Amino acid sequence: MQKQPRRQVKEARSLLENIITSKDNPVIKLYQKLSSSKKERLQYGLFVLEGLRITEDAIREESGLSHLIVTEQAREKFGERLFQADLRDTRIIVISNELGNKIASTDNTQGVFAICRIPQQRQMTFAENGRYIVLFGLQDPGNVGMMIRTADALGIDGVIMSKSCDLYSPKVIRSTMGSVFRMDIMIENDADRLFELLTQSGAETSAAIIDKDAIPVTECSFTGRQAVLIGNEGNGLPPDISARCSRRVTIPMHGTVNSLNAAMAAGILMWELKK
Amino acid sequence: MQKQPRRQVKEARSLLENIITSKDNPVIKLYQKLSSSKKERLQYGLFVLEGLRITEDAIREESGLSHLIVTEQAREKFGERLFQADLRDTRIIVISNELGNKIASTDNTQGVFAICRIPQQRQMTFAENGRYIVLFGLQDPGNVGMMIRTADALGIDGVIMSKSCDLYSPKVIRSTMGSVFRMDIMIENDADRLFELLTQSGAETSAAIIDKDAIPVTECSFTGRQAVLIGNEGNGLPPDISARCSRRVTIPMHGTVNSLNAAMAAGILMWELKK
Repeated sequence: MQKQPRRQVKEARSLLENIITSKDNPVIKLYQKLSSSKKERLQYGLFVLEGLRITEDAIREESGLSHLIVTEQAREKFGERLFQADLRDTRIIVISNELGNKIASTDNTQGVFAICRIPQQRQMTFAENGRYIVLFGLQDPGNVGMMIRTADALGIDGVIMSKSCDLYSPKVIRSTMGSVFRMDIMIENDADRLFELLTQSGAETSAAIIDKDAIPVTECSFTGRQAVLIGNEGNGLPPDISARCSRRVTIPMHGTVNSLNAAMAAGILMWELKK
Repeated sequence: MQKQPRRQVKEARSLLENIITSKDNPVIKLYQKLSSSKKERLQYGLFVLEGLRITEDAIREESGLSHLIVTEQAREKFGERLFQADLRDTRIIVISNELGNKIASTDNTQGVFAICRIPQQRQMTFAENGRYIVLFGLQDPGNVGMMIRTADALGIDGVIMSKSCDLYSPKVIRSTMGSVFRMDIMIENDADRLFELLTQSGAETSAAIIDKDAIPVTECSFTGRQAVLIGNEGNGLPPDISARCSRRVTIPMHGTVNSLNAAMAAGILMWELKK
């Protein structure tokens, strides 16, 4: 078992002598297109990663790394660590530090980038007593990422995204802190099909809304299979969506209405769902 | 009562004919110094705001607005709304839209800026059965702002900041979404004095830590006066600080250790403290 990675390291090393310096290199051009455009991500079925930790998470969870791009400096610092993994299906590319700075989205890049395959959409399988959240119309990538990260930390069984921002945008991916590779995530943008799926699942559906007449979450019992729907940052859930749920729940708030951030509200609901 | 604001509007209008276009204007220079430097904020006892809503919050809570700076466009759009308030102690300045774009921290500025007086430090008064959080060593301004906003939404009685990032930095202020003007916030950077204060308050002190041996927050009873200490994003609370608390509590987590964001963890703890 030990020999294989060693041989790979050697092979990888020999491939790593050609250092790319030009933005016109086809892989670099692809990386940049995927970074900035949802359309290109959909067309190629690929998305990008930036950073050592999240790239290691992707490798660890066998998340279909198509390209691993490292700067010369990152090869020195992290090469041993990264190239130990099974990267048979991954093309490794070394770029100059300058080019790394050009394609980086942060000021202090670690110089580790990757192109990853978007996994095939699968139907969610609903576990007995499973706990699910539905993100409906969420638009802020940082919020969506934080919700996925929190769902992972609290042991939520799955996340369904509907009419929300692109799961594969670099900002969402970054703010999941690797949870995107561990969580069961499904995308269903058609509201009718979404409710068909929820009905078939047998889950009790709770619409999270800001309304004094809704049931305070402290008075809700969450038994059996449960799905909580969370709405847009500014506008909440559309009334017709909220009306299709079995009940409407709310987090009792003090002071100004609407003063909990959407990710924080989702976090508190997931906490109540799981504890 | 109605006459006064009307007269003011008129006076304000007449003062608003001189439109500032230069970055060298002393108020603009002061605004920029206060935006970028904690030292300058301390020296002048002033901090800055950007945005319509937070400026209105500051006016509503009578938070000592020293200067209100609006672009020509913002004067057209929001002038009627802003100038209705009692702005006797506030100097109003109109700047060109171009200058507004230069001093703005966002791409799509509303063109509303303000300089605000830092309130006098007061000793926290501890309410019976009061609920307090202590932010110890927090460094991310967005996290600190979100924690203050969440404390406000959930009805926490006060926030004590210790060895954390500057409360008056523009990023913290922005992410509190106005809660900075509503919450009782005290700064105490000396650990000995902090614990003296907590002891005198009679509050039970809980150190929030990531440790399987700590008491799960689900098994804690929070009765009487309570203070929860939250530590740094990456490193948590220093062991000597945690040891000085009456107990150590933890949020049971699934999956990767450390996977809850600090603000989210603080939010869940505050929720448990208050519900």
